[in-house]
Amino acid sequence: MDRLFVPGPVDVGQDVMKQMQRPMIYHRGKDFSQLLENCVENLKKIMYTKNYDFISTSSSTGLMEAAIRNCVKKRCLNVATGAFGERWHQIALANGKEADILEVEWGQAVTPEIIDDTLSKGNYDCITLVHNETSTGVSNPIYDLSKVIKRHDVCFLVDTVSSMGGVKIEVDKLGIDVCLFGSQKALGLPPGISACSVSEKALKRAETVKNRGYYFDFMVFKKYWLKKQTPSTPALPQIYALDYQLDKILKEGLEERYQRHKKLAEITRAWTKDRFELFPEEKYASNTLTCIKNSRKINVEHLKADLKKRRLLISNGYGKLREKTFRIAHMGDRTILELKELLDVIDEILVES
Amino acid sequence: MDRLFVPGPVDVGQDVMKQMQRPMIYHRGKDFSQLLENCVENLKKIMYTKNYDFISTSSSTGLMEAAIRNCVKKRCLNVATGAFGERWHQIALANGKEADILEVEWGQAVTPEIIDDTLSKGNYDCITLVHNETSTGVSNPIYDLSKVIKRHDVCFLVDTVSSMGGVKIEVDKLGIDVCLFGSQKALGLPPGISACSVSEKALKRAETVKNRGYYFDFMVFKKYWLKKQTPSTPALPQIYALDYQLDKILKEGLEERYQRHKKLAEITRAWTKDRFELFPEEKYASNTLTCIKNSRKINVEHLKADLKKRRLLISNGYGKLREKTFRIAHMGDRTILELKELLDVIDEILVES
Repeated sequence: MDRLFVPGPVDVGQDVMKQMQRPMIYHRGKDFSQLLENCVENLKKIMYTKNYDFISTSSSTGLMEAAIRNCVKKRCLNVATGAFGERWHQIALANGKEADILEVEWGQAVTPEIIDDTLSKGNYDCITLVHNETSTGVSNPIYDLSKVIKRHDVCFLVDTVSSMGGVKIEVDKLGIDVCLFGSQKALGLPPGISACSVSEKALKRAETVKNRGYYFDFMVFKKYWLKKQTPSTPALPQIYALDYQLDKILKEGLEERYQRHKKLAEITRAWTKDRFELFPEEKYASNTLTCIKNSRKINVEHLKADLKKRRLLISNGYGKLREKTFRIAHMGDRTILELKELLDVIDEILVES
Repeated sequence: MDRLFVPGPVDVGQDVMKQMQRPMIYHRGKDFSQLLENCVENLKKIMYTKNYDFISTSSSTGLMEAAIRNCVKKRCLNVATGAFGERWHQIALANGKEADILEVEWGQAVTPEIIDDTLSKGNYDCITLVHNETSTGVSNPIYDLSKVIKRHDVCFLVDTVSSMGGVKIEVDKLGIDVCLFGSQKALGLPPGISACSVSEKALKRAETVKNRGYYFDFMVFKKYWLKKQTPSTPALPQIYALDYQLDKILKEGLEERYQRHKKLAEITRAWTKDRFELFPEEKYASNTLTCIKNSRKINVEHLKADLKKRRLLISNGYGKLREKTFRIAHMGDRTILELKELLDVIDEILVES
């Protein structure tokens, strides 16, 4: 099997994979309700929230659509520090919402000042952010941003797809109204489900918004959650795996898990600076994935192919950065030893070529 | 483990479950494209179609929303012969579509005449149907209905959630524009993915429809399918299982599979008629699940509880039929022997009580 240093899906431990083999149960029975409740209780710990937590059988993109359809009534500001920030805007427009995009040069983080300024000038009721931008390796300074966003009467919708579980994100403290993420990134789970916290403010807003649809309607999620159920048949295997993995994560200790991710990132950044350049400003470099500027102009496709022969997968740059960068993800249950092995192999290949 | 005679999720074979343990692969790589292509080619055989086939990481309800959002431009006729027919209407309204509901008494099938008549009177561009109504055990006569629907310029959107793979549904011959179903019913797979065929006519329509959203936009599905990819990270474990199970189904032989489902249904119906009454008119009784009229006024909750002690699960009636009926599903990889065991146990319980 290949070892995945791509920004998701990540490798999943055999113990976690085994959980998916647990027998099917009826999703309208008590056993399932108990399972769902366990998951939700533990998700709240990982998200530091007392808000509702909904589990969706969809990728995170589905929950981005949910956040937009439920919360945007007037106009939405989509902060884009990379491709996934742009996706928020694309989703807003595709759902017929009024929306503006605030574009930041790729590789840079957005600043509190520009957000404060932009929100002051427009008639916005929502702002969207990608916390950890997988396309550029930038981690936006969400604690600083939160302070200015709180000054405005907006719903704060945050994609923490590639950071939740690897980086501390205190949803309630940050005033995040919808915080969403998928299973297949820093949580170290197989893909197939995603989750989001939803604040009372977001739910109140949703009540007044028309055309929320059905599959991603927060009102429908809430109605079923009150019965400890999901609106339709859930991806049971992933929910079994989630239940198990959340226990494992809490046992590792959240702070320990964040420290491991930080250490993985520091090793990768140190390695990068000796050989290439960091693409993002170091201060905002992500702890779950490193985007490396191809300053030596190596042939990234060759490097990827050489690594693939040794069953190691990394990613080229995303979109317009395809040739200019490459990316190493270091998240989930990844160990420092495994990361060092990868970096050693890349060194060998660089010497040979 | 419980043996599930509920109308989904169904029991999944250990061999199928094992497939879900295959290691994660990158969903933008060649291995995944090959996997997806295999699945799609085999799905086309099971659906008897040359149309596009899209695999969605969502339950079937998500694809009902997709069909509505992509295809309804003017007005939609939602045929409701039970609760899932009503769901089509609910989804249409929740997405801000103009829609009428054509309600048929629960337990009855819809007739070609009433459909022809209703379509003639309204300005419809879509008609929705639930082929196999899980709430009532009615299988609507889709071959007869198709003939009259073809006379009207509408997109024909069909929920075959609890029939596809257990009953022959020739999508192209029937002129179905969107035919959707989930993994966890007659296909004998774990829940978490769903699939649909989409005709050129439906795609052409979608091009002209605004606010299709993103996650369920057929144009987005098509764009990625042309690259042999899914729009976002798919539920890999279920796609592994699908790939394996489709091969297994084709090896069993489609006709043989339909015959087995027919035989399972005949046994259940004969058993029912000796002890209770069939809820639907026999002519339209489903081959994947039997809805039994509680003509002896037994306590269904007690029966369910007694069965649960023996690790057998059946369902009470759905919604307003809760006390009046109970339901036995017989689909997927269910064997005749397993079904007979259940019926024998129910007989024992009925004698005892």
